Order: sequence, then C-alpha cells, then structure tokens
Amino acid sequence: MESVSFPPLSRVAVCGGTHGNEMTGVYMVRHLQKEKIDKIGSVSVSTVLTNPRAVEICRRYVETDLNRCFTEALLNSPVTDSSPYELRRAQELNAQIGPKGSKEAMDLIIDIHNTTSNMGLCFIFYSIDWFTLHILKYLQSKMASVEVRAIQLDIPIAEAYSLESVGKHGFAIEAGPQPNGVVRADIHNMVKEAVDHIFSWLQEFNSGNTFEGGEVEAYTLEKSIDYPRNPVTGEITAAIHSQLQDNDFKLLQRGNPIFMSFSGETVKYDGEDLYPFFVNECAYYEKKIAFHLARKIKLTLPPIKVTG
Amino acid sequence: MESVSFPPLSRVAVCGGTHGNEMTGVYMVRHLQKEKIDKIGSVSVSTVLTNPRAVEICRRYVETDLNRCFTEALLNSPVTDSSPYELRRAQELNAQIGPKGSKEAMDLIIDIHNTTSNMGLCFIFYSIDWFTLHILKYLQSKMASVEVRAIQLDIPIAEAYSLESVGKHGFAIEAGPQPNGVVRADIHNMVKEAVDHIFSWLQEFNSGNTFEGGEVEAYTLEKSIDYPRNPVTGEITAAIHSQLQDNDFKLLQRGNPIFMSFSGETVKYDGEDLYPFFVNECAYYEKKIAFHLARKIKLTLPPIKVTG
Repeated sequence: MESVSFPPLSRVAVCGGTHGNEMTGVYMVRHLQKEKIDKIGSVSVSTVLTNPRAVEICRRYVETDLNRCFTEALLNSPVTDSSPYELRRAQELNAQIGPKGSKEAMDLIIDIHNTTSNMGLCFIFYSIDWFTLHILKYLQSKMASVEVRAIQLDIPIAEAYSLESVGKHGFAIEAGPQPNGVVRADIHNMVKEAVDHIFSWLQEFNSGNTFEGGEVEAYTLEKSIDYPRNPVTGEITAAIHSQLQDNDFKLLQRGNPIFMSFSGETVKYDGEDLYPFFVNECAYYEKKIAFHLARKIKLTLPPIKVTG
Repeated sequence: MESVSFPPLSRVAVCGGTHGNEMTGVYMVRHLQKEKIDKIGSVSVSTVLTNPRAVEICRRYVETDLNRCFTEALLNSPVTDSSPYELRRAQELNAQIGPKGSKEAMDLIIDIHNTTSNMGLCFIFYSIDWFTLHILKYLQSKMASVEVRAIQLDIPIAEAYSLESVGKHGFAIEAGPQPNGVVRADIHNMVKEAVDHIFSWLQEFNSGNTFEGGEVEAYTLEKSIDYPRNPVTGEITAAIHSQLQDNDFKLLQRGNPIFMSFSGETVKYDGEDLYPFFVNECAYYEKKIAFHLARKIKLTLPPIKVTG
C-alpha cells in the first residue's frame, strides 16, 4: 500500500469531564492543568475540563448529555439563555477547540471517558481515520498488559455527535470498569500510560518517522439490545446474566445466557454471532441499552508519515 | 454459656432503596412487592422501598442522607413542609415500621445496601444483638462460596442513625462491589441467597429449634482516613493505591501503600495494624472518607431459642 502523508499534528486537546461523573479524565485534566502542561515536545497541548458544572455536582450531565451535542445541526442552532446548559457549552467548546470542519480546529482531540463495563482500554472513533488507527496499532505494540481495542461508529462527520468530532482528527478513550464518581488507580494508570504513548507517537510522527502499514482489528456497531422491561411501568425486570457480565468483546453465540430475570429465569441469546460491548453500562439504562453488539472487522493501514 | 430465649420474630421488614442508587435492594423489594409476598411461613413480611424519590432520580438522596436520620433526636424533631424530604420520610418510616424503641416496632428490620467497595456480603449492626450474630453464624455455615462478615458500630441505640435501628432487632446488609445505578446479577444472587437463608433461620427459630452458641468474628470501627486533598480547593490529589483497592478486610500494616498521588507518588500507611473496609466507597468522597479501619474482635454467643 502506498504511504500517505499529512501535515504535523501540532495542536492537541486532551479533554476530560465531558461526563461529569467519569473521574479518570477529570483528575487527569486537573493534574495537567495544575502542572501547567501546555507543551509536550513539538506539540502544543490544550487541556479542557469540558463540562465543569456536571463535574461540580458529580453527575453525567446537568440538563442533557453534552456528548450528544456536537452534530453540525446542534452546533449551528440558535441558543438563548434558556437553552440547555450543555448545548450552550457545546458551542463554547466548538469555538474553543474547533470550529468543527474548519482549518482552525485542533489537529487532534482526545476525550477521556469511563464506563462501568469491563471494556479495558478502548478507542471510539468515526469513519476511517489513519491517525487513530496508527496510534491504536502503536499502543497495541507498546502496552503489553492491556488489550487495546477500537470501536468504529459509521456516522458521517456532520452527524457525529461527540466532542472529538470537532477536531481535524480525534477519538474517545473509554476505560473501564470504573464506577461513576469513583477514581481507581489501575484505570488511571492504564489511561495515563496510553496518553504518554500517544504523545510519544506524536513526537515520532512530527519528527519524520514513517510508521509502517499493516492490519488492525476494529469493532463496528451492529445493534443494541434493551433490558426486558415491565410494559406498563418501563422498569427493568432482569439483570445482565452473570455469564455475560464483564465479558465485553467475548463472542456471543445463539443460546448463550444474556439476562437473568428477578424471578430467576434465564433469557438466552437468539441472534447471529456478534461481539457484545458496553455490557451493563450505568448511563445506558436510561438510553434503553443493556449492551451493544458489534462485528469484528480488519482494516488495512497504509504507511504514514509527515508531509515534506 | 446459658441459653437465652426470646419471643418469636413474627414481623419482619425487608427494606431497599434507602440510598436510591443502590440497586440490589431496589429490585429485590420491587420484585417481592410484584409477587405480593407478605408472609413467609410463620413470618409476616413487610417490604418497603424506603426512599422512593431518590430511587426515582437514581441518586443516593434528594436533600440529605436518609440513613443518617433515624436518631431519636431527629425522629422526634418538629418537621414542616420545608424540612428536608428525607427527614420527613424518616418520621413516616418510623411510624410505619417503628416506632423506634416501642413494642409496636418490627421484630426485625433488614435493610439492603450496596457499596462500590469490595466488601462481599457484610452485616452492619449496633451494639451486641444475639439475633444478628446467630443469623450471621448461620449464613457463614450455609454460604460456602462467600465470606460473610460483620461490622459492629458501637453507638448507643438512641444515637444510632440508620433505618434498621428502628426495629426491635435489625441489621444492614452491605453487598459489593457494585457501581451505583447498576444491578449486577452476581451481587443480586448473593443477597437473594442470604435473604432466603435468613428466612429459613427465622422459621427454625420460631418453630422451637435451639441454635448452639459459639464464637463469631466481627469488625469494630476504629477510625477513618481521608484522601490527601488540595488544602485550598479541597479536591483530592491522590487515588486509593492499587495495592489497597479491592483489598477490604485484608490486614493493613505499617509501610503498606495506601494512596497514589496523581503525580505518581506513593503514600504509605503509618499506623498500627488494622483492617480496612469501605475502601473507595463512592458516597464517602463527600463524607471525606477514603477508607475505614477496624479491629477484629471475637464474640461468644450463648445458645438461643424461642420463649416458652
């Protein structure tokens, strides 16, 4: 495959607190700000606590999920003082580290999230982005003790709803399992190691190193499964089955248990073989998602190097 | 030791949702109510969702921690419509399953809680209560796969602040680790098994079985340790160290790591040998508790049987 070249990635934003109760990003950004880190080698670094009001009250959001507000339509919608806080904040952030789709936008946005699901370290990204996939491949080679995975959301960039879509390139880092409102040292160390490697990659890239091509695996969202619910009250009537709980990215096959009802019955899976993820994510109860199902794909990367 | 005898335990309350985001009790009580369970053998059963407004919004509490409102002083304080919701609710509950210290009070109150700490299945009780300790001993003999522990809080009953203190006898069940807002099948099954065994014990006791005396271990709270904090902002500057995280009830000794600061320094323990518990409990960040420390004690139980 022929190599591709891009301009250097000179301006990078490291973001946390997009969901105010996902603590790894909150403490990482606060620490970088306290240490006044604004440059790492050739890269100028912006650190952003993206939803400070939600962080203050330690909840996912104040009025609406900030990380669903970055579509072009919402970023360009008129706002008033009575608009939801997060919609106004999204437009502020777009001005600060975007604007989305413009040449002023950050070269790379990394947004740090946590999940209650056992997803380890996982990138989430839109469409095909060679940077994201090369960084993923680099992390996979550097982080021996952690399986680093990636989920690709096949959404056109205009409709991409999350913060990192505001940058020229960007991805979210999901790290778990970690309860909301709690910071775990193991998860913190894992994400810190990943961020350190990402900046090493950026130094190597900017200084002219060619990264060889190759193959990486990714997961693509196929569909979402809701909990069994009481049709009248909407209350859930079953929990994720113990055999599915904590088994994100383990192939789910027809007949495998997926739910255990509170009266003790097992519900079995009845679809094609797919990979579950976001299994029992706290915030997805209200979104009516017990888990997502993905297909595994292989992506072939071209060699990549800096322009010139 | 001479045996002690008590009247039968005929009226038992099973409570959940005292903290509205601790889901095991919420779903267990809802399920018992849906199944219209109001009698198990010789025992009349009341099921109570104790903080329904907090359950509705899936938060620990609405205005103040309900499970700190059951002191005699607070239960007897005048309330108005502008009093905190939980204080008014505590007085309602006291009328419903108490009144505290009266002969009308429930014979036994079991309140089901969850923690983000790795505490397994743990009773919390006040002073010395032979029922609680006999039930504990029974569960320890019946539940092979789980270590069932107990924490004794040495607080006079008038000052006891939690729901179960309203009954003639009572204890809280803490079950974890489980994130707030999430229900895990493993934790649910563990608590359900415990509750089933408790009702078996009650049937045996009420029908005249003598339970032999013996020894049980319990933990008594010695002191609480807060996170290192920024003296100006109050923000925490360190996480529980990986070597302490998830190691509730493992002896902590001088020199063991307890915190890892966000700049990477390890803080070591510098006190006498004690047992940590509630390590990294989500709700205790605001209470300025990173973990509690306990002494282990042995309690000698008399044989127990029903009166007459």
